[in-house]
Amino acid sequence: MSSLWNVSTDKFINEKESIMRNGNVYQIANGYMGYRGTLDEFGPDELVGITLAGIFDRVGDAWREPINAPNGGFTKVTLDGIEISALTTTVKNHKQSLNLENAVFERETDYESQGKILKIKSSRFLSADKPNLGVVKFSVSCDKAAKVSISTGIDYNIWDLNGQHLLKLSPEKNNEILLVHGVTNELSKKVAVAEAAEINFGKEAHLIKDNRNLRVIDLDAEAGKIYTFYKYFTVFTDNDPIKVSVADAAIMSVTEAKIVGYETCLKNHNAQWAKKWAYCDVIIDGDDEAQQALRYSIFQLLIVAPVNGSGNSIPARALSGQVYKGAIFWDTEMFMFPFFLYTYPEKAVELMRYRVKTLDGARRKAQTEGVGYSGAYYAWESQETGDDACTYFNIGDPNTGRDLRTHFRDKQVHISGDIAIAMWEYFKLTGDDSLLLEGGAEVILECARFYFSYAYFKKDKNRYEILDVIGPDEYHERVNNNAFSSMVAKATFEIANATVNYLKQNHPTEFNTLVKKINIADELPMFIEAADLLYVPLPDKKTGVIEQFDAYFKLKDATIAELKSKMIHPNEYLGAGQGLAVPTKVIKQADVVMMLNLFKDRYSTEIKKANWEYYEPLTEHGSSLSACAYAMVAAEFGNIDFAYNYFMKTAKIDIEAKYHVYVGTIFMGGSHPAANGGAWMTAVFGFGGVRATAEHVIINPRLYKKWNKLQFNMIYKRDRFNIKISQNDVEINADSSNKKNHTFLVSGQAIDCIPGKHDIIKLG
Amino acid sequence: MSSLWNVSTDKFINEKESIMRNGNVYQIANGYMGYRGTLDEFGPDELVGITLAGIFDRVGDAWREPINAPNGGFTKVTLDGIEISALTTTVKNHKQSLNLENAVFERETDYESQGKILKIKSSRFLSADKPNLGVVKFSVSCDKAAKVSISTGIDYNIWDLNGQHLLKLSPEKNNEILLVHGVTNELSKKVAVAEAAEINFGKEAHLIKDNRNLRVIDLDAEAGKIYTFYKYFTVFTDNDPIKVSVADAAIMSVTEAKIVGYETCLKNHNAQWAKKWAYCDVIIDGDDEAQQALRYSIFQLLIVAPVNGSGNSIPARALSGQVYKGAIFWDTEMFMFPFFLYTYPEKAVELMRYRVKTLDGARRKAQTEGVGYSGAYYAWESQETGDDACTYFNIGDPNTGRDLRTHFRDKQVHISGDIAIAMWEYFKLTGDDSLLLEGGAEVILECARFYFSYAYFKKDKNRYEILDVIGPDEYHERVNNNAFSSMVAKATFEIANATVNYLKQNHPTEFNTLVKKINIADELPMFIEAADLLYVPLPDKKTGVIEQFDAYFKLKDATIAELKSKMIHPNEYLGAGQGLAVPTKVIKQADVVMMLNLFKDRYSTEIKKANWEYYEPLTEHGSSLSACAYAMVAAEFGNIDFAYNYFMKTAKIDIEAKYHVYVGTIFMGGSHPAANGGAWMTAVFGFGGVRATAEHVIINPRLYKKWNKLQFNMIYKRDRFNIKISQNDVEINADSSNKKNHTFLVSGQAIDCIPGKHDIIKLG
Repeated sequence: MSSLWNVSTDKFINEKESIMRNGNVYQIANGYMGYRGTLDEFGPDELVGITLAGIFDRVGDAWREPINAPNGGFTKVTLDGIEISALTTTVKNHKQSLNLENAVFERETDYESQGKILKIKSSRFLSADKPNLGVVKFSVSCDKAAKVSISTGIDYNIWDLNGQHLLKLSPEKNNEILLVHGVTNELSKKVAVAEAAEINFGKEAHLIKDNRNLRVIDLDAEAGKIYTFYKYFTVFTDNDPIKVSVADAAIMSVTEAKIVGYETCLKNHNAQWAKKWAYCDVIIDGDDEAQQALRYSIFQLLIVAPVNGSGNSIPARALSGQVYKGAIFWDTEMFMFPFFLYTYPEKAVELMRYRVKTLDGARRKAQTEGVGYSGAYYAWESQETGDDACTYFNIGDPNTGRDLRTHFRDKQVHISGDIAIAMWEYFKLTGDDSLLLEGGAEVILECARFYFSYAYFKKDKNRYEILDVIGPDEYHERVNNNAFSSMVAKATFEIANATVNYLKQNHPTEFNTLVKKINIADELPMFIEAADLLYVPLPDKKTGVIEQFDAYFKLKDATIAELKSKMIHPNEYLGAGQGLAVPTKVIKQADVVMMLNLFKDRYSTEIKKANWEYYEPLTEHGSSLSACAYAMVAAEFGNIDFAYNYFMKTAKIDIEAKYHVYVGTIFMGGSHPAANGGAWMTAVFGFGGVRATAEHVIINPRLYKKWNKLQFNMIYKRDRFNIKISQNDVEINADSSNKKNHTFLVSGQAIDCIPGKHDIIKLG
Repeated sequence: MSSLWNVSTDKFINEKESIMRNGNVYQIANGYMGYRGTLDEFGPDELVGITLAGIFDRVGDAWREPINAPNGGFTKVTLDGIEISALTTTVKNHKQSLNLENAVFERETDYESQGKILKIKSSRFLSADKPNLGVVKFSVSCDKAAKVSISTGIDYNIWDLNGQHLLKLSPEKNNEILLVHGVTNELSKKVAVAEAAEINFGKEAHLIKDNRNLRVIDLDAEAGKIYTFYKYFTVFTDNDPIKVSVADAAIMSVTEAKIVGYETCLKNHNAQWAKKWAYCDVIIDGDDEAQQALRYSIFQLLIVAPVNGSGNSIPARALSGQVYKGAIFWDTEMFMFPFFLYTYPEKAVELMRYRVKTLDGARRKAQTEGVGYSGAYYAWESQETGDDACTYFNIGDPNTGRDLRTHFRDKQVHISGDIAIAMWEYFKLTGDDSLLLEGGAEVILECARFYFSYAYFKKDKNRYEILDVIGPDEYHERVNNNAFSSMVAKATFEIANATVNYLKQNHPTEFNTLVKKINIADELPMFIEAADLLYVPLPDKKTGVIEQFDAYFKLKDATIAELKSKMIHPNEYLGAGQGLAVPTKVIKQADVVMMLNLFKDRYSTEIKKANWEYYEPLTEHGSSLSACAYAMVAAEFGNIDFAYNYFMKTAKIDIEAKYHVYVGTIFMGGSHPAANGGAWMTAVFGFGGVRATAEHVIINPRLYKKWNKLQFNMIYKRDRFNIKISQNDVEINADSSNKKNHTFLVSGQAIDCIPGKHDIIKLG
């Protein structure tokens, strides 16, 4: 780790585990595709992966997952006839780094072979300007004269977790362009990768061998001379809005890149990155470790934000591979979306459009799950159609080798409400109702409709209850009246009612059209009743603790250490029907505390403190989503040291790559964009104390003691602000391009932020 | 197997497994206690057990279970100083038998030792006249002159499944009476066993050794001479209604028995047995195998029927040991009770009184289970107080050695309704309302109250639903709208309403007192609504098949053989959270078919046939309760061959002792009184086609082809009938002592059965 804008290492550890983790840490991406942080000469065994957003495939009964493209960035070198690779050659020096400023990956390796030192230096980026484009700069030099042979082109040996997704892979050479194209197994979607190179030395030949489509450059290298070349690759699939074939599109596009040239490609790429950071950077003054971890977290979110207009979202392991089926979970709305909503709304709306696009899938799930429900029951693991990729046996049991029946798919009903809440937040904080009109309102009403069809009424208690669910704490399946899920359902009814009121008043024609389209008029009054009578567990009158679900308090007391001591296999899953945590109070992740954070305006600080203190020792943090909720709530009730610990836990997860990579028998290594979003939320919402409502922006700072300053930008109702929080004051700069005045409540003081105005508010 | 009134074997197989199974087959009992069919010289390793009804104990956290008394029937012999035992001595001949006519166990063994043949012959019975008494006749002879030593007395080495239940076991000799007394571990209940002997040969000494309190008779036996003695033992506990100490009671009682003498004891015992058979025998003419199996089944029920006035019931493994915690399950009401109700109502009412006695336990369970309910939620495994002995981890997993979370205790809600139904049946078929007034009505109303507090209302479907239950098919836990459970709940509401109407009209004062006592006035109207609006899954319009529970039809198709082929351990349990059957349609036992049998008047024959044919191939019959339901329904829709196969399966279970003795890691060997009751039901209800209602007795015979005649007795509204069914006619003899005329509907013909009259009805 070298600087606040850079992640680097000067070691190469020739072990699978290290290569896998570095593949995650050093990955680059541009929303269209991810490229794992592997070396140029690596292949599928080293988990080279160019994972594409929004295109999925299934082989037989195996898990459906995103496809990995052939690797257009491949290059390997031979020295005097001996193949050079970090896996087999003596590495004298090695350095690899990731530039956070512009997402450029660089490696530099000195190899020793046959008494000669061969230096390889390369850098690559996936264009933030042209989403289909990747660019590589590659240099080689030898300290002594030598015969050097460079093989570069497209490697179509592909790392796949669950079966070979690309079939009929055909290598071609078309003029100077290398091409590999194939089709997906399930839906016969076409995929093409083209490569062009700018090489001004040696003698080039074409070679197709070992599933590689290569140009081979033989070179009598002079001692000490650096030979540099550039290569460009483009990836196109049937998902792209193109009018020509994917092969032609790839060829045309890569040709264009080569004509434009390396420097211009990089310049255009950098310009996009400058904009991203201008919107989204957060500065922590006084704590470089926190600064770097947070910036890396933000970087992770920026590289995977969906391409505008793509209708894609961000999978739980982003574009770091095929883990978790490349599926979109609640992670996106609850953990990543706020970052985009506050800093980069054009990406936030894209995430929401993905949910509009997949509404029919959610309807299908509602109709077919269990006894069949109405409305929209969003997929727990959502792919391009919104049908659920989650299986009923989603975790393998290492003790028996059997797949465990899990209820993630059929019982984690809070997903629909999570989406409705995000949809409404978008409207509230942007003031932009176009999303509502373009399907957002329909999503909201269908989510409420789903909950009504799912809810039961308890006559002797005069209340609706949400039964038989899994809350965020997945170690306890099929519970009744889970505080989080029930509150989410209640909020969904409230939001549905607010949507109805808003549309009636502001868009009566569209409202009537919608009500007719989905035939929901008769149900709307029920949503009002349900919002009123839906039961959410209340804080205990004495202790303030909210019971996570019915009879949770009756579960066995146990410590996490006790459970771990009983494990037969180290990767054993603690949940599902018979996991060790199931009969105990030990929970996987923040659940009541997550609810208190999400609905922070409904509970007092005392209640938050009481619940945090009750649940914190019981939480195993078996999910990377957990730490940020504990961090934010701790910040809110004033335990800043605890908040900081949990903040660092969430912020460092990907930069340090210290996570479990197996749950049960399932490989789940990769990046953690939800935790990255959690890091941003903890910084801005937690320590910054920021909370925007429909009426104003609240700032109640509670900086960590080491921090001199916390500085960030935000967008509120389409106007831009730069906020600097110190231990003593809050500085608000309203952008001069802003259209309106906005009220900020800074530690209770109302500030009227006028466009172009600069306010400094002293803190008590 | 030798005759229709006798079970015997002429082999002794010196293997644990055989000794265990014979211990079940040859057991005797008298409602107060059971005595396993073990040899006189056996001890705890051979599973000698004198299991007492209605007295329980718990050691530490282990399962609570009934206690086994010290063995007052113990005798062992030495020949010329060498101990003689079937386990160590050469057995030349061995025969053991059980006389079904009077429950006398007999053994006769020729041993060869040191060139001599020693013959031992003994017989024993537990008095059907004096419930605390056991009597043994023991003879010994040797073909050559020999020194024979007989040690007889009380062996207080006790076989216990879960810890030592009797502590401070003290041997005493009081005049000529041997005594062992002790106290239970948990509640310090006193237990005493006294023994007296009538021995007219040899020289007697007293010896306390190896936890045995013995009289040792040394004898110079003459060649060929038979030496016979008699012994008596009595067992008393603090549960007995006595005014003296248990030790004094045992001594006085055994002294009295000795004075009365063997022949008189046996005569009084036989007189009781004559009465039992006069009430309860069923004759099958033309099928000796069926006859013997059925008679043995009836015998099993008769030996364990509770002692009048004891307030005890019959455990699932009767008095054959401590298996299943000596607990009373739904087995009693649903499978055994009908036999007693139709033939021996003084025992039927005793079974019901047990439920009245344990009503407070059921109330405690309702209040403490889950979120807490109202009314009476009867224990799944009920002991003397009605608190639930069932644990939340009731089965061990042989694959992992862990206890499995099972929901038998918390979700098998049909138990309360099973009891309410039996309670009402008793009233309907006897016309005796004293049970209702003595607590039966309170039980019924509290059961309805429980269901109301458990039920949810589904507003969009305008119906109540019973959610989150286990039906009879225990392989599918926590299901919604289980046909059986929901119909039982609905029937409970109907019965509660009928009870209210009956009491209002006939016992208004008692009714008002009851309503006030349990403060239920406000809830009664809800029971009427619930009886009307409670949802029970309907037959599919096309196929007629009733879905066992919500979304059962969506489960995987699988065969039982497929599941078995996947088993890792042969005793693996197929249910609980992750069992192999859980995701499939394979069911443990009759569930919908059980419902169709219990509520036979609500469904057409076509529906019964459709469901039988659908579910039969899916049923593993992992419970001994399953076969009889399939037998009865098959008889009803006319598949008599299938009915016969299932009849033989249920009737032969205990006489053949071919059953699994492990579920998971739990030993569950013992007798199967529910299957025994199922055998009687299949004979009389199934083949006999008998069904009594409040108005009349229906007889629609469908005899098995081999059967010339099926003859049985029944009591209806306190009047007695003998019924003979042949292939051509039905003969009804109304006892001359009957008080009233009763209508019988024989194959649709109404017969007015006048006291003392004899009717023969030709069958079409």
